[in-house]
Amino acid sequence: MKRNVKVSSAVIRRLPRYYRQLSELQEAGTIRISSSALGKSMGLTASQIRQDLFCFGEFGQQGYGYKVDSLREEIGEILGISRGHTVVVLGTGNLGRAIIENFRFSSNGFRLLAAFDIDPHVVGTRIAGVPVYHADTLESFLQKNPASVGLLTVPIAAAQEMGDRLVSTGVKGIWNFTNYEIAVDPERVVVESVHFSDSLLALSYMISQREEREGEESV
Amino acid sequence: MKRNVKVSSAVIRRLPRYYRQLSELQEAGTIRISSSALGKSMGLTASQIRQDLFCFGEFGQQGYGYKVDSLREEIGEILGISRGHTVVVLGTGNLGRAIIENFRFSSNGFRLLAAFDIDPHVVGTRIAGVPVYHADTLESFLQKNPASVGLLTVPIAAAQEMGDRLVSTGVKGIWNFTNYEIAVDPERVVVESVHFSDSLLALSYMISQREEREGEESV
Repeated sequence: MKRNVKVSSAVIRRLPRYYRQLSELQEAGTIRISSSALGKSMGLTASQIRQDLFCFGEFGQQGYGYKVDSLREEIGEILGISRGHTVVVLGTGNLGRAIIENFRFSSNGFRLLAAFDIDPHVVGTRIAGVPVYHADTLESFLQKNPASVGLLTVPIAAAQEMGDRLVSTGVKGIWNFTNYEIAVDPERVVVESVHFSDSLLALSYMISQREEREGEESV
Repeated sequence: MKRNVKVSSAVIRRLPRYYRQLSELQEAGTIRISSSALGKSMGLTASQIRQDLFCFGEFGQQGYGYKVDSLREEIGEILGISRGHTVVVLGTGNLGRAIIENFRFSSNGFRLLAAFDIDPHVVGTRIAGVPVYHADTLESFLQKNPASVGLLTVPIAAAQEMGDRLVSTGVKGIWNFTNYEIAVDPERVVVESVHFSDSLLALSYMISQREEREGEESV
Protein backbone atom coordinates (compact mmCIF):
# COMPACT_ATOMS: atom_id res chain seq x y z
CA MET A 1 0.00 0.00 0.00
CA LYS A 2 1.32 3.40 -0.92
CA ARG A 3 1.17 5.88 1.90
CA ASN A 4 1.02 9.59 1.69
CA VAL A 5 3.37 10.43 4.56
CA LYS A 6 2.23 14.03 5.13
CA VAL A 7 -0.98 13.45 7.05
CA SER A 8 -2.61 16.34 8.92
CA SER A 9 -2.92 16.07 12.68
CA ALA A 10 -6.71 16.32 12.36
CA VAL A 11 -6.71 13.12 10.29
CA ILE A 12 -4.37 11.41 12.76
CA ARG A 13 -6.79 12.35 15.55
CA ARG A 14 -9.67 10.79 13.61
CA LEU A 15 -7.91 7.49 12.84
CA PRO A 16 -8.36 6.02 16.34
CA ARG A 17 -12.05 6.96 16.14
CA TYR A 18 -12.36 5.10 12.84
CA TYR A 19 -10.68 2.13 14.42
CA ARG A 20 -13.00 2.21 17.42
CA GLN A 21 -16.10 2.64 15.28
CA LEU A 22 -15.11 -0.16 12.92
CA SER A 23 -14.35 -2.45 15.86
CA GLU A 24 -17.86 -1.83 17.18
CA LEU A 25 -19.38 -2.45 13.74
CA GLN A 26 -17.41 -5.67 13.41
CA GLU A 27 -18.55 -6.85 16.84
CA ALA A 28 -22.13 -6.06 15.80
CA GLY A 29 -21.67 -8.27 12.75
CA THR A 30 -21.65 -5.55 10.07
CA ILE A 31 -19.85 -6.76 6.91
CA ARG A 32 -19.92 -3.68 4.67
CA ILE A 33 -20.64 -0.02 5.30
CA SER A 34 -21.03 2.95 2.99
CA SER A 35 -19.00 6.09 3.58
CA SER A 36 -22.22 8.00 4.27
CA ALA A 37 -23.38 5.49 6.93
CA LEU A 38 -19.92 5.39 8.50
CA GLY A 39 -19.87 9.18 8.44
CA LYS A 40 -23.29 9.49 10.00
CA SER A 41 -22.30 7.23 12.90
CA MET A 42 -19.26 9.43 13.52
CA GLY A 43 -20.71 12.88 12.86
CA LEU A 44 -18.66 13.31 9.66
CA THR A 45 -19.66 13.78 6.03
CA ALA A 46 -19.22 10.98 3.50
CA SER A 47 -16.76 13.09 1.53
CA GLN A 48 -14.67 13.74 4.65
CA ILE A 49 -14.49 9.99 5.27
CA ARG A 50 -13.44 9.33 1.68
CA GLN A 51 -10.85 12.11 1.85
CA ASP A 52 -9.41 10.89 5.18
CA LEU A 53 -9.06 7.30 4.05
CA PHE A 54 -7.65 8.33 0.71
CA CYS A 55 -4.59 9.69 2.58
CA PHE A 56 -3.62 6.11 3.31
CA GLY A 57 -4.39 4.39 0.07
CA GLU A 58 -7.32 2.99 -1.83
CA PHE A 59 -10.02 1.55 0.38
CA GLY A 60 -13.51 0.53 -0.57
CA GLN A 61 -15.16 0.23 -3.92
CA GLN A 62 -17.40 2.77 -5.58
CA GLY A 63 -20.97 1.73 -4.89
CA TYR A 64 -20.03 -1.15 -2.59
CA GLY A 65 -18.81 0.70 0.46
CA TYR A 66 -16.05 -0.44 2.76
CA LYS A 67 -15.42 -3.97 3.99
CA VAL A 68 -15.54 -3.48 7.75
CA ASP A 69 -13.02 -6.13 8.81
CA SER A 70 -10.33 -5.34 6.26
CA LEU A 71 -10.67 -1.58 6.70
CA ARG A 72 -10.42 -2.04 10.47
CA GLU A 73 -7.34 -4.21 10.08
CA GLU A 74 -5.72 -1.79 7.67
CA ILE A 75 -6.30 1.18 9.98
CA GLY A 76 -5.00 -0.89 12.89
CA GLU A 77 -1.82 -1.51 10.88
CA ILE A 78 -1.48 2.21 10.18
CA LEU A 79 -1.93 2.95 13.88
CA GLY A 80 0.84 0.49 14.71
CA ILE A 81 -1.32 -1.94 16.64
CA SER A 82 0.70 -4.98 15.60
CA ARG A 83 4.13 -3.47 16.22
CA GLY A 84 4.45 -5.05 19.65
CA HIS A 85 4.54 -1.81 21.61
CA THR A 86 5.15 -2.06 25.35
CA VAL A 87 4.32 0.30 28.19
CA VAL A 88 5.31 0.97 31.80
CA VAL A 89 3.20 2.99 34.24
CA LEU A 90 4.87 5.57 36.48
CA GLY A 91 2.71 6.40 39.47
CA THR A 92 0.07 4.14 41.02
CA GLY A 93 -2.21 6.70 42.61
CA ASN A 94 -5.95 6.52 41.97
CA LEU A 95 -5.62 7.42 38.31
CA GLY A 96 -2.70 5.09 37.63
CA ARG A 97 -4.50 2.28 39.39
CA ALA A 98 -7.74 2.95 37.49
CA ILE A 99 -5.90 2.79 34.19
CA ILE A 100 -3.96 -0.37 35.11
CA GLU A 101 -7.14 -2.10 36.27
CA ASN A 102 -9.52 -1.00 33.54
CA PHE A 103 -7.75 0.13 30.41
CA ARG A 104 -7.56 -2.53 27.72
CA PHE A 105 -3.94 -2.10 26.70
CA SER A 106 -3.86 -5.31 24.70
CA SER A 107 -6.84 -4.31 22.51
CA ASN A 108 -4.78 -1.30 21.55
CA GLY A 109 -1.69 -3.34 20.76
CA PHE A 110 0.22 -2.55 23.96
CA ARG A 111 1.70 -4.95 26.48
CA LEU A 112 1.80 -3.55 30.02
CA LEU A 113 5.16 -4.58 31.52
CA ALA A 114 5.23 -3.09 35.02
CA ALA A 115 4.33 -0.16 37.22
CA PHE A 116 6.61 2.01 39.37
CA ASP A 117 6.01 3.96 42.54
CA ILE A 118 7.83 5.07 45.68
CA ASP A 119 5.08 4.27 48.19
CA PRO A 120 6.37 1.37 50.36
CA HIS A 121 2.78 0.13 50.78
CA VAL A 122 2.48 -0.44 47.03
CA VAL A 123 6.00 -1.36 45.96
CA GLY A 124 6.31 -5.14 45.81
CA THR A 125 2.57 -5.71 45.31
CA ARG A 126 0.64 -6.40 42.11
CA ILE A 127 -2.22 -4.37 40.64
CA ALA A 128 -4.46 -6.50 38.42
CA GLY A 129 -1.51 -8.86 38.02
CA VAL A 130 0.95 -6.12 37.10
CA PRO A 131 4.05 -5.97 39.36
CA VAL A 132 4.80 -2.66 41.08
CA TYR A 133 8.52 -1.91 41.50
CA HIS A 134 10.34 0.92 43.24
CA ALA A 135 10.92 3.92 41.00
CA ASP A 136 14.64 3.69 41.81
CA THR A 137 14.79 0.53 39.73
CA LEU A 138 13.22 2.11 36.62
CA GLU A 139 16.45 2.37 34.64
CA SER A 140 17.69 -1.13 35.43
CA PHE A 141 14.28 -2.59 34.59
CA LEU A 142 14.03 -0.75 31.28
CA GLN A 143 17.53 -1.81 30.31
CA LYS A 144 16.38 -5.43 30.43
CA ASN A 145 12.79 -4.77 29.30
CA PRO A 146 12.68 -1.88 26.85
CA ALA A 147 9.38 -0.01 26.80
CA SER A 148 7.96 1.90 23.84
CA VAL A 149 5.90 4.17 26.06
CA GLY A 150 6.00 5.48 29.62
CA LEU A 151 2.66 6.45 31.10
CA LEU A 152 3.12 9.34 33.54
CA THR A 153 0.64 9.69 36.39
CA VAL A 154 3.04 10.99 39.03
CA PRO A 155 2.41 14.17 41.04
CA ILE A 156 3.17 17.37 39.11
CA ALA A 157 6.27 18.02 41.22
CA ALA A 158 7.83 14.79 39.92
CA ALA A 159 6.58 15.01 36.34
CA GLN A 160 9.60 16.65 34.71
CA GLU A 161 12.15 14.50 36.51
CA MET A 162 10.36 11.25 35.68
CA GLY A 163 9.84 12.43 32.11
CA ASP A 164 13.58 13.10 31.77
CA ARG A 165 14.41 9.69 33.19
CA LEU A 166 12.05 8.01 30.73
CA VAL A 167 13.67 9.85 27.83
CA SER A 168 17.17 8.89 28.93
CA THR A 169 16.19 5.21 29.04
CA GLY A 170 15.11 5.45 25.42
CA VAL A 171 11.32 5.26 25.51
CA LYS A 172 9.84 6.56 22.27
CA GLY A 173 6.66 8.04 23.66
CA ILE A 174 5.32 9.53 26.88
CA TRP A 175 1.62 9.27 27.62
CA ASN A 176 1.26 12.19 29.97
CA PHE A 177 -1.65 12.36 32.44
CA THR A 178 0.04 14.77 34.85
CA ASN A 179 -1.56 17.94 33.46
CA TYR A 180 1.94 19.38 33.40
CA GLU A 181 3.56 20.19 30.06
CA ILE A 182 6.88 18.40 30.42
CA ALA A 183 9.74 19.85 28.38
CA VAL A 184 11.54 17.15 26.40
CA ASP A 185 13.48 16.99 23.15
CA PRO A 186 10.82 16.39 20.45
CA GLU A 187 13.48 14.69 18.33
CA ARG A 188 13.92 12.01 20.95
CA VAL A 189 10.41 11.38 22.21
CA VAL A 190 6.76 11.98 21.30
CA VAL A 191 4.58 13.31 24.11
CA GLU A 192 0.83 12.78 24.09
CA SER A 193 -0.85 14.66 26.90
CA VAL A 194 -4.34 13.89 28.13
CA HIS A 195 -6.13 17.03 29.28
CA PHE A 196 -9.46 16.26 30.88
CA SER A 197 -10.18 19.99 30.94
CA ASP A 198 -10.21 20.20 27.13
CA SER A 199 -12.97 17.65 27.09
CA LEU A 200 -15.02 19.31 29.85
CA LEU A 201 -14.67 22.74 28.23
CA ALA A 202 -15.85 21.39 24.88
CA LEU A 203 -18.88 20.01 26.72
CA SER A 204 -19.33 23.35 28.49
CA TYR A 205 -19.32 25.08 25.10
CA MET A 206 -21.92 22.77 23.63
CA ILE A 207 -24.19 23.15 26.65
CA SER A 208 -23.79 26.92 26.65
CA GLN A 209 -24.67 27.13 22.94
CA ARG A 210 -27.78 25.09 23.59
CA GLU A 211 -28.79 27.22 26.57
CA GLU A 212 -28.42 30.32 24.46
CA ARG A 213 -30.54 28.90 21.67
CA GLU A 214 -33.21 27.83 24.14
CA GLY A 215 -33.11 31.26 25.75
CA GLU A 216 -33.65 32.91 22.37
CA GLU A 217 -36.48 30.56 21.45
CA SER A 218 -38.34 31.18 24.69
CA VAL A 219 -38.22 34.99 24.29
CA MET B 1 -19.79 40.65 19.86
CA LYS B 2 -21.28 39.04 16.80
CA ARG B 3 -20.93 35.33 16.70
CA ASN B 4 -20.88 33.12 13.70
CA VAL B 5 -23.03 30.31 15.05
CA LYS B 6 -21.95 27.59 12.60
CA VAL B 7 -18.58 26.64 14.06
CA SER B 8 -16.91 23.42 12.95
CA SER B 9 -16.29 20.74 15.52
CA ALA B 10 -12.54 20.99 14.82
CA VAL B 11 -12.60 24.63 15.93
CA ILE B 12 -14.66 23.76 19.00
CA ARG B 13 -12.04 21.14 19.89
CA ARG B 14 -9.28 23.74 19.58
CA LEU B 15 -10.98 26.39 21.73
CA PRO B 16 -10.17 24.69 25.07
CA ARG B 17 -6.55 24.38 23.93
CA TYR B 18 -6.45 28.11 23.18
CA TYR B 19 -7.89 28.76 26.61
CA ARG B 20 -5.34 26.51 28.28
CA GLN B 21 -2.44 27.99 26.33
CA LEU B 22 -3.53 31.58 27.04
CA SER B 23 -3.95 30.78 30.74
CA GLU B 24 -0.38 29.52 30.82
CA LEU B 25 0.87 32.61 28.97
CA GLN B 26 -1.01 34.86 31.37
CA GLU B 27 0.47 33.05 34.38
CA ALA B 28 3.91 33.47 32.82
CA GLY B 29 3.29 37.23 32.59
CA THR B 30 2.92 37.51 28.79
CA ILE B 31 0.92 40.62 27.84
CA ARG B 32 0.67 40.32 24.06
CA ILE B 33 1.33 37.53 21.60
CA SER B 34 1.41 37.37 17.83
CA SER B 35 -0.68 34.81 15.96
CA SER B 36 2.53 33.18 14.70
CA ALA B 37 3.99 32.82 18.23
CA LEU B 38 0.67 31.53 19.58
CA GLY B 39 0.48 29.15 16.64
CA LYS B 40 4.01 27.89 17.16
CA SER B 41 3.36 27.11 20.81
CA MET B 42 0.30 25.10 19.78
CA GLY B 43 1.57 23.45 16.61
CA LEU B 44 -0.75 25.49 14.37
CA THR B 45 -0.07 27.99 11.60
CA ALA B 46 -0.62 31.71 12.16
CA SER B 47 -3.31 31.75 9.49
CA GLN B 48 -5.17 28.88 11.15
CA ILE B 49 -5.15 30.80 14.44
CA ARG B 50 -6.51 33.92 12.73
CA GLN B 51 -9.14 31.90 10.92
CA ASP B 52 -10.27 30.10 14.09
CA LEU B 53 -10.58 33.24 16.14
CA PHE B 54 -12.31 35.08 13.32
CA CYS B 55 -15.26 32.67 13.74
CA PHE B 56 -16.04 34.38 17.02
CA GLY B 57 -15.49 38.03 16.19
CA GLU B 58 -12.68 40.48 15.82
CA PHE B 59 -9.75 39.83 18.11
CA GLY B 60 -6.29 41.34 18.00
CA GLN B 61 -4.94 44.18 15.94
CA GLN B 62 -2.94 43.90 12.75
CA GLY B 63 0.73 44.17 13.70
CA TYR B 64 0.08 44.24 17.44
CA GLY B 65 -0.94 40.66 18.09
CA TYR B 66 -3.45 39.53 20.66
CA LYS B 67 -3.83 40.85 24.18
CA VAL B 68 -3.42 37.68 26.21
CA ASP B 69 -5.74 38.48 29.12
CA SER B 70 -8.66 39.79 27.10
CA LEU B 71 -8.44 37.05 24.49
CA ARG B 72 -8.35 34.46 27.28
CA GLU B 73 -11.37 36.05 28.94
CA GLU B 74 -13.28 36.24 25.67
CA ILE B 75 -12.61 32.59 24.85
CA GLY B 76 -13.57 31.66 28.41
CA GLU B 77 -16.89 33.46 27.83
CA ILE B 78 -17.43 31.57 24.58
CA LEU B 79 -16.69 28.29 26.36
CA GLY B 80 -19.28 29.15 28.99
CA ILE B 81 -16.88 29.34 31.92
CA SER B 82 -18.86 32.02 33.74
CA ARG B 83 -22.29 30.44 33.27
CA GLY B 84 -22.25 28.83 36.71
CA HIS B 85 -22.28 25.24 35.50
CA THR B 86 -22.56 22.53 38.14
CA VAL B 87 -21.57 18.86 38.11
CA VAL B 88 -22.28 15.64 40.00
CA VAL B 89 -20.05 12.57 39.84
CA LEU B 90 -21.61 9.12 39.46
CA GLY B 91 -19.25 6.41 40.61
CA THR B 92 -16.39 6.80 43.08
CA GLY B 93 -14.08 4.01 41.97
CA ASN B 94 -10.41 4.77 41.38
CA LEU B 95 -11.08 6.96 38.38
CA GLY B 96 -13.97 8.88 39.96
CA ARG B 97 -11.91 9.41 43.07
CA ALA B 98 -8.87 10.56 41.07
CA ILE B 99 -10.98 13.11 39.23
CA ILE B 100 -12.72 14.38 42.38
CA GLU B 101 -9.39 14.74 44.19
CA ASN B 102 -7.29 16.21 41.40
CA PHE B 103 -9.36 17.78 38.66
CA ARG B 104 -9.68 21.54 38.99
CA PHE B 105 -13.39 21.89 38.29
CA SER B 106 -13.53 25.49 39.45
CA SER B 107 -10.78 26.63 37.05
CA ASN B 108 -13.03 25.33 34.30
CA GLY B 109 -16.10 27.13 35.60
CA PHE B 110 -17.74 24.09 37.20
CA ARG B 111 -18.90 23.68 40.77
CA LEU B 112 -18.78 20.07 42.01
CA LEU B 113 -21.93 19.46 44.04
CA ALA B 114 -21.76 15.84 45.16
CA ALA B 115 -20.80 12.29 44.26
CA PHE B 116 -22.98 9.17 44.20
CA ASP B 117 -22.18 5.52 44.69
CA ILE B 118 -23.78 2.34 46.02
CA ASP B 119 -20.81 1.04 48.03
CA PRO B 120 -21.79 1.22 51.73
CA HIS B 121 -18.14 1.85 52.64
CA VAL B 122 -18.12 5.08 50.65
CA VAL B 123 -21.69 6.37 50.95
CA GLY B 124 -21.85 8.93 53.77
CA THR B 125 -18.14 9.80 53.55
CA ARG B 126 -16.49 12.75 51.85
CA ILE B 127 -13.83 12.68 49.15
CA ALA B 128 -11.71 15.84 49.14
CA GLY B 129 -14.59 17.55 50.92
CA VAL B 130 -17.22 16.39 48.44
CA PRO B 131 -20.12 14.45 50.03
CA VAL B 132 -20.85 10.97 48.69
CA TYR B 133 -24.55 10.01 48.69
CA HIS B 134 -26.31 6.78 47.81
CA ALA B 135 -27.20 6.51 44.14
CA ASP B 136 -30.83 5.91 45.15
CA THR B 137 -31.03 9.54 46.23
CA LEU B 138 -29.78 10.93 42.90
CA GLU B 139 -33.18 12.14 41.68
CA SER B 140 -34.21 13.77 44.95
CA PHE B 141 -30.84 15.49 45.24
CA LEU B 142 -30.94 16.82 41.69
CA GLN B 143 -34.48 18.09 42.17
CA LYS B 144 -33.19 20.39 44.90
CA ASN B 145 -29.73 20.94 43.37
CA PRO B 146 -29.94 20.96 39.58
CA ALA B 147 -26.73 19.92 37.85
CA SER B 148 -25.62 20.98 34.39
CA VAL B 149 -23.48 17.91 33.92
CA GLY B 150 -23.33 14.37 35.23
CA LEU B 151 -19.91 12.73 35.15
CA LEU B 152 -20.26 8.99 34.55
CA THR B 153 -17.56 6.69 35.95
CA VAL B 154 -19.78 3.75 36.84
CA PRO B 155 -19.11 0.16 35.66
CA ILE B 156 -20.16 -0.45 32.05
CA ALA B 157 -23.09 -2.61 33.18
CA ALA B 158 -24.62 0.41 34.93
CA ALA B 159 -23.69 3.04 32.35
CA GLN B 160 -26.90 3.12 30.30
CA GLU B 161 -29.21 3.03 33.31
CA MET B 162 -27.38 5.84 35.10
CA GLY B 163 -27.21 7.82 31.86
CA ASP B 164 -30.98 7.48 31.44
CA ARG B 165 -31.56 8.58 35.03
CA LEU B 166 -29.36 11.63 34.52
CA VAL B 167 -31.28 12.59 31.38
CA SER B 168 -34.64 12.23 33.11
CA THR B 169 -33.52 14.57 35.90
CA GLY B 170 -32.75 17.22 33.31
CA VAL B 171 -28.96 17.42 33.18
CA LYS B 172 -27.81 19.10 30.00
CA GLY B 173 -24.60 17.20 29.52
CA ILE B 174 -23.04 13.84 30.33
CA TRP B 175 -19.27 13.59 30.68
CA ASN B 176 -18.83 9.93 29.94
CA PHE B 177 -15.73 8.06 31.16
CA THR B 178 -17.30 4.60 31.02
CA ASN B 179 -15.95 3.66 27.58
CA TYR B 180 -19.51 2.62 26.73
CA GLU B 181 -21.42 4.60 24.11
CA ILE B 182 -24.64 5.34 25.98
CA ALA B 183 -27.70 5.84 23.79
CA VAL B 184 -29.57 9.03 24.73
CA ASP B 185 -31.78 11.52 22.91
CA PRO B 186 -29.34 14.08 21.44
CA GLU B 187 -32.10 16.69 21.58
CA ARG B 188 -32.20 16.41 25.35
CA VAL B 189 -28.58 16.00 26.33
CA VAL B 190 -25.04 16.45 24.99
CA VAL B 191 -22.67 13.53 25.60
CA GLU B 192 -18.93 14.05 25.68
CA SER B 193 -17.08 10.76 25.92
CA VAL B 194 -13.48 10.47 27.02
CA HIS B 195 -11.73 7.63 25.21
CA PHE B 196 -8.24 7.03 26.54
CA SER B 197 -7.67 4.61 23.68
CA ASP B 198 -7.98 7.38 21.06
CA SER B 199 -5.12 9.16 22.76
CA LEU B 200 -2.92 6.06 23.10
CA LEU B 201 -3.53 5.05 19.47
CA ALA B 202 -2.59 8.52 18.24
CA LEU B 203 0.64 8.13 20.23
CA SER B 204 1.11 4.64 18.79
CA TYR B 205 0.72 6.08 15.29
CA MET B 206 3.29 8.81 15.89
CA ILE B 207 5.79 6.34 17.34
CA SER B 208 5.23 3.90 14.50
CA GLN B 209 5.79 6.61 11.89
CA ARG B 210 9.02 7.56 13.60
CA GLU B 211 10.19 3.94 13.80
CA GLU B 212 9.49 3.53 10.09
CA ARG B 213 11.44 6.66 9.22
CA GLU B 214 14.35 5.57 11.39
CA GLY B 215 14.21 2.12 9.84
CA GLU B 216 14.41 3.64 6.35
CA GLU B 217 17.25 5.95 7.31
CA SER B 218 19.33 3.16 8.79
CA VAL B 219 18.94 0.99 5.68
